[in-house]
Amino acid sequence: MSVRAGILVTGTEVITARITDRNGPWISQRLGELGIEVAHILTVADRPEDLEAGLAFMAGEGCELIVTSGGLGPTADDLTAEIVARFAGVGMSLDEDMERKIARILAAFARRLRFDPEALRVANRKQAMVPDGAETIDPAGTAPGLVLAIDGGPTVIVLPGPPRELHAMWEPALATTGAQAVLERAEAYLGQTVRLFGIPESEIAKTLREIEADVELAQLEITTCLRRGELEVDIRHRPGAEQAREALVAGIVERHGRFVFSTDGTTIDEQVGELLRDRRRIALAESCTAGQLAARLAEPPGASSYLAGGIVAYSNEAKVELLRVPPALIEEHGAVSPEVAAAMADGAIARFGADLGVGITGIAGPDGGTEEKPVGYVCVCVKVGDGPMIARDPVIPGERVEIKDRSCTLALHLLRRLLRGEEFPL
Amino acid sequence: MSVRAGILVTGTEVITARITDRNGPWISQRLGELGIEVAHILTVADRPEDLEAGLAFMAGEGCELIVTSGGLGPTADDLTAEIVARFAGVGMSLDEDMERKIARILAAFARRLRFDPEALRVANRKQAMVPDGAETIDPAGTAPGLVLAIDGGPTVIVLPGPPRELHAMWEPALATTGAQAVLERAEAYLGQTVRLFGIPESEIAKTLREIEADVELAQLEITTCLRRGELEVDIRHRPGAEQAREALVAGIVERHGRFVFSTDGTTIDEQVGELLRDRRRIALAESCTAGQLAARLAEPPGASSYLAGGIVAYSNEAKVELLRVPPALIEEHGAVSPEVAAAMADGAIARFGADLGVGITGIAGPDGGTEEKPVGYVCVCVKVGDGPMIARDPVIPGERVEIKDRSCTLALHLLRRLLRGEEFPL
Repeated sequence: MSVRAGILVTGTEVITARITDRNGPWISQRLGELGIEVAHILTVADRPEDLEAGLAFMAGEGCELIVTSGGLGPTADDLTAEIVARFAGVGMSLDEDMERKIARILAAFARRLRFDPEALRVANRKQAMVPDGAETIDPAGTAPGLVLAIDGGPTVIVLPGPPRELHAMWEPALATTGAQAVLERAEAYLGQTVRLFGIPESEIAKTLREIEADVELAQLEITTCLRRGELEVDIRHRPGAEQAREALVAGIVERHGRFVFSTDGTTIDEQVGELLRDRRRIALAESCTAGQLAARLAEPPGASSYLAGGIVAYSNEAKVELLRVPPALIEEHGAVSPEVAAAMADGAIARFGADLGVGITGIAGPDGGTEEKPVGYVCVCVKVGDGPMIARDPVIPGERVEIKDRSCTLALHLLRRLLRGEEFPL
Repeated sequence: MSVRAGILVTGTEVITARITDRNGPWISQRLGELGIEVAHILTVADRPEDLEAGLAFMAGEGCELIVTSGGLGPTADDLTAEIVARFAGVGMSLDEDMERKIARILAAFARRLRFDPEALRVANRKQAMVPDGAETIDPAGTAPGLVLAIDGGPTVIVLPGPPRELHAMWEPALATTGAQAVLERAEAYLGQTVRLFGIPESEIAKTLREIEADVELAQLEITTCLRRGELEVDIRHRPGAEQAREALVAGIVERHGRFVFSTDGTTIDEQVGELLRDRRRIALAESCTAGQLAARLAEPPGASSYLAGGIVAYSNEAKVELLRVPPALIEEHGAVSPEVAAAMADGAIARFGADLGVGITGIAGPDGGTEEKPVGYVCVCVKVGDGPMIARDPVIPGERVEIKDRSCTLALHLLRRLLRGEEFPL
């Protein structure tokens, strides 16, 4: 039997979308790795009745575990601990040991920032109130976490909203008696993700129907989704369905091999990072993406082993002076042209003495499009200093933000092919 | 009376966090602008029973409007239309007019991509099945949207998952009879957001308690949240409470004026963009942020009027050769030092012939920290070519991604002060 869980993200600032929730997805991934099936991620405002209704809904839907994030702060709208206690039908008491711990943390703050100690003391007292019977988790910031195993109900893990604090308190939360009791009941939930680039979703729908003729897919949970211009096929199952999964993956690879770039869960960013790491140094020349590709390549720790640097050449002057793009080339073909993209890549390589270069120039919109070169027209060129190059100039659909994002994704796929010595389909 | 709404985001790929949902927040903002109170944003997997339970939960919690995103694609796990019909207790029929529309769209695809027309035809037929009594919305991609006013229940707006399609279909969805009937009942919901930088949340908690002594705050819904190192105080209310809101804002400004950077909803990104637009050209020299600040400054349309460009100088060689940072400076103070940050800013200004420059160098971690310069130590310098400069070198808490993000936010706040000719508090 699988254990179902619900994630309850609280905060009016989240539901009004003034901040983007990173905790729901993060917790969901952790629970998935533990073989727990996440049934719901629910965001509610800081309203007692909505919070409580959310807990009741998830419990009613058979969630044995509920993880909440947020609402443990010092302000009056931070109510999670109180509502969880009410939902469990238990009281709250001051945890004096916890109060002292928080006081020590806040004292350091107060000294450093010279803010009103009275304001801090009130916050302190509020944050040290704990539902009776709950296990507490020491704060990573100033708010303690809670784990409460409700009689005849779910176990509730209560964590603070700031991601850094939530991440730091996750393992201690799992280590509690309450959490362990649930985790012991979770059966492994296995999965594999196949990622493709350059193929429409309808092709996969058809492929799945074909494979279904030979392979029993009912034991597999298969989901396909388009993300950033890539197509992901995610396969999940309980132990025992490994063969069906392997047959399915083999069937996809057999039919669409040249489009498949990942069957081991790695992303294109990770693959390019690994292909470059400690081997080749890359330099970027970005116009419309304005540094976004550089930032993506710099995401993994240790990126400095391969990222020589980049130039954001937003203006033509910068393209000419910093990247040595011949002005005549810009006049003849326009700043957004395959010729200029290639010259930008050359310029980046020369400037940074890199092994590889990327040039990206395009029209991200909303203005600047023409009949011949509409918004979304992007020219990408990746090349090895002295060797081969791959270039593409598609019209990318979507809005400004998506056009930039997909231009970077396209560049990464071209890089992968170049680094693996493959040509690029389509 | 206020109208409550729920947002139901479907997709196993979302709940397993393989893609980040952008639709929930986007829809929530749009509904908020219409005076509709979003009570729940619920994400569920592509499981019929979870989808239906989500609809039932929201209807049971008094949501008069439910907006769903996702689950309209061609694959078997796309079930939203079917489940909404079941929940409403109505059947489904093929909308032949819609089938023809989709066929035309797909035909273009098929020609361009040369993919199996049979696969497309099946997808087509599936996507043209419509719950009886539903109003349809023409596809922006290939999937039509639906609006179904359920007898004695909520009105459900069914939209596809891809953000571009959802955005394009939003206005047509609101224009339907079913949506209009709900919108007419929504009473304006007013709001104001006060944004502060450089002050802890506990100070605002105290300030609110003080102000409460003189001002009736009960009619206001006040939420505070920390985001990207900024503190946001969001105030929402129904018509009639304007005076209380103004008094509250005045009270905050009076006590914390120098920390308040926005009372009109503008973000620091927007403010800096406006301060620069058509007036001054800026150039960036980024090390640890690796192009992220350039990308942020390039986000708004028309950014080319002020963004001259940037250099991602990840390596010391790049700092020396491209930004003309004296090697001696790096040897003496280290690559991560206020001195080098200032030299980087100078280098950027010189390279791009810009009016303003920013230099950022820091230790984003997880490795590379020392006793003296721990992970999170970041040196930021903003300066006018021939004039004043502001520099800071804090230790920023958090993980690699947050350290980079907050470094950019800090740089933007320093820029704002510099452009407004103000000094910076703390």
